[in-house]
Amino acid sequence: MSWEDNVRKVVPYVPGEQPTNKNIIKLNTNECPYPPAPKVRELINDMKYEDFRLYPDPEAKSLVNVLSGYYGVPSDQVFVGVGSDDVISMAFLTLFNSDKPILFPDITYSFYDVWADLYRIPYKQIPVDDEFKIHKEDYYGENGGIIFPNPNAPTGVLEDLDFVEDIIKHNQDVVVIVDEAYIDFGGKSALPLIDKYDNVLVVQTFSKSRAMAGMRIGYAFGSKKLIKYLQDAKFSFNSYTMNRPSLALGTAAVEDDKYFKDTCGKIIATRERVKKELTELGFEFPDSKSNFIFAKHKEKSGQEIFDALKSNNIFVRHWNSPRIAEYLRISIGTDAEMDAMLEFLRGYLK
Amino acid sequence: MSWEDNVRKVVPYVPGEQPTNKNIIKLNTNECPYPPAPKVRELINDMKYEDFRLYPDPEAKSLVNVLSGYYGVPSDQVFVGVGSDDVISMAFLTLFNSDKPILFPDITYSFYDVWADLYRIPYKQIPVDDEFKIHKEDYYGENGGIIFPNPNAPTGVLEDLDFVEDIIKHNQDVVVIVDEAYIDFGGKSALPLIDKYDNVLVVQTFSKSRAMAGMRIGYAFGSKKLIKYLQDAKFSFNSYTMNRPSLALGTAAVEDDKYFKDTCGKIIATRERVKKELTELGFEFPDSKSNFIFAKHKEKSGQEIFDALKSNNIFVRHWNSPRIAEYLRISIGTDAEMDAMLEFLRGYLK
Repeated sequence: MSWEDNVRKVVPYVPGEQPTNKNIIKLNTNECPYPPAPKVRELINDMKYEDFRLYPDPEAKSLVNVLSGYYGVPSDQVFVGVGSDDVISMAFLTLFNSDKPILFPDITYSFYDVWADLYRIPYKQIPVDDEFKIHKEDYYGENGGIIFPNPNAPTGVLEDLDFVEDIIKHNQDVVVIVDEAYIDFGGKSALPLIDKYDNVLVVQTFSKSRAMAGMRIGYAFGSKKLIKYLQDAKFSFNSYTMNRPSLALGTAAVEDDKYFKDTCGKIIATRERVKKELTELGFEFPDSKSNFIFAKHKEKSGQEIFDALKSNNIFVRHWNSPRIAEYLRISIGTDAEMDAMLEFLRGYLK
Repeated sequence: MSWEDNVRKVVPYVPGEQPTNKNIIKLNTNECPYPPAPKVRELINDMKYEDFRLYPDPEAKSLVNVLSGYYGVPSDQVFVGVGSDDVISMAFLTLFNSDKPILFPDITYSFYDVWADLYRIPYKQIPVDDEFKIHKEDYYGENGGIIFPNPNAPTGVLEDLDFVEDIIKHNQDVVVIVDEAYIDFGGKSALPLIDKYDNVLVVQTFSKSRAMAGMRIGYAFGSKKLIKYLQDAKFSFNSYTMNRPSLALGTAAVEDDKYFKDTCGKIIATRERVKKELTELGFEFPDSKSNFIFAKHKEKSGQEIFDALKSNNIFVRHWNSPRIAEYLRISIGTDAEMDAMLEFLRGYLK
């Protein structure tokens, strides 16, 4: 026998490329093209390096309180973690502890099935239709829990609040997680529903609209009871996860509301303009309410365009997966970045 | 049926208190009493806040490379994570995937059984003797893997390298993890053994000797094969965990070797002096090679002394657990902090 017999073998995930070359146009991981709120810069200089010797506050109170204030949710209904990946992973582990399969769309965030496998949670992936729409009736049957992003990723398709509530209403005996990583780019958050349903978890992140992917901060809202279950699980497994800079600098990104709204507004404006230009260039895409566009070209293959862009230092995302192999997920960058991409495409597709 | 039926219920862990009152003497969580290397302060001011919008390097190359250089280990034999808790948790998940029980001491780091329960790994806790010594023969039988801290926590008892190698030699068909959180305070690391045995993982942390508990940085060394398994698992579940400040500032703590050695030397000198003074005050303790002393008093109960210290704003650690209820774990602070504690005890015990 060898020690390798006891090793859990996995299919390694390949993250979106993080090229170090500064001359590229990086539209492949849905980062914000604008810097974090200016107050973050001030707070960096205020950080007391002497205090780094001390463990961070395990309850992350500074961050929880500022989120509580901003969103008008009591602090015992707020949960935070190392990016929304950490938050959702902890939610799977804690809240999806059923023998019945949890449900999520077949085309969706690529970590849901990974976490289900990790925690040995049975799951069923329900196909979205050919326009990438979720059908709410598909989620009415017996199940062990539900998760879906709204807007969905990588499609960008948004559902309205009635649609989300309908799914929750039909599933009050399990936990429903609404993953709102991209909600700030034109969607309506399900946050108000946590007052009406104690089985709902609404997850958001600092990585997109708050321009802090590099800090790894995610958060979630739910009933007091539900958040308490998450806290208990988190404290029992790993008490100190968010480090001192995250707790200190995260607050600044929430407090500057004007900067936040301006940034989202700029990205939305750029997105709407790019939609028109992509259409003129022969692209088709579901309408996006996120900070990316999921587009395929009428003639050229997804792989071909991806390769052509890449060899011109323009990075977008492409999956060689069933149903979406012809699509490219193009993050919304600055106007200048999008113009450079469009300019290249105009020449390339001519 | 209620959604709460599907919730995983846990016994919440109570972390060592993190009082916010600055006037206390904090000797309860084994933090370093001295600040991080001065270069950390310089690097804070160099951090580019604009880059926080971008995801961190998932491979943590800057940190891995500096650890590789400092310890003379190829970079593909280095694994990093959000504190050694994250590193060890990932190692349990990946490497202890057996039906046979893993083995660890009964008095040891309190998260081992928690992670085993979390990942549904069977385990057997082997009693240390009345002097808190591990008996290596207890680890010769069939098992699913082995983990122990060296020095052990919360006892501070160190085993020499021959002892560690003997356990590894008798267990080449499973993974053996040596948790060296406190190795820099007088122990000899098992690091050289990774060249001889491909089934060994040596785990260390920035939280103690490198004075960066607040940054959450842990690391481990092992064979190329073993580290690859850990990387694959890590990337498949959560690619981006260590944030940009950790990756940037962590390097500084390694690069200033003189400061590091001076700090460890100061803590060791204080510890040896405090040992003498505690003995004179009627305390008994196993000899400690860590940055804490695990002591009981000949007459007064552990709870009584704990309460008396606490009401005088001196925080140490006390567990109401079998076999160790009479003991206090006293972290080594600055000389002034230890003098204040000793001064109080002299009056209190008179």
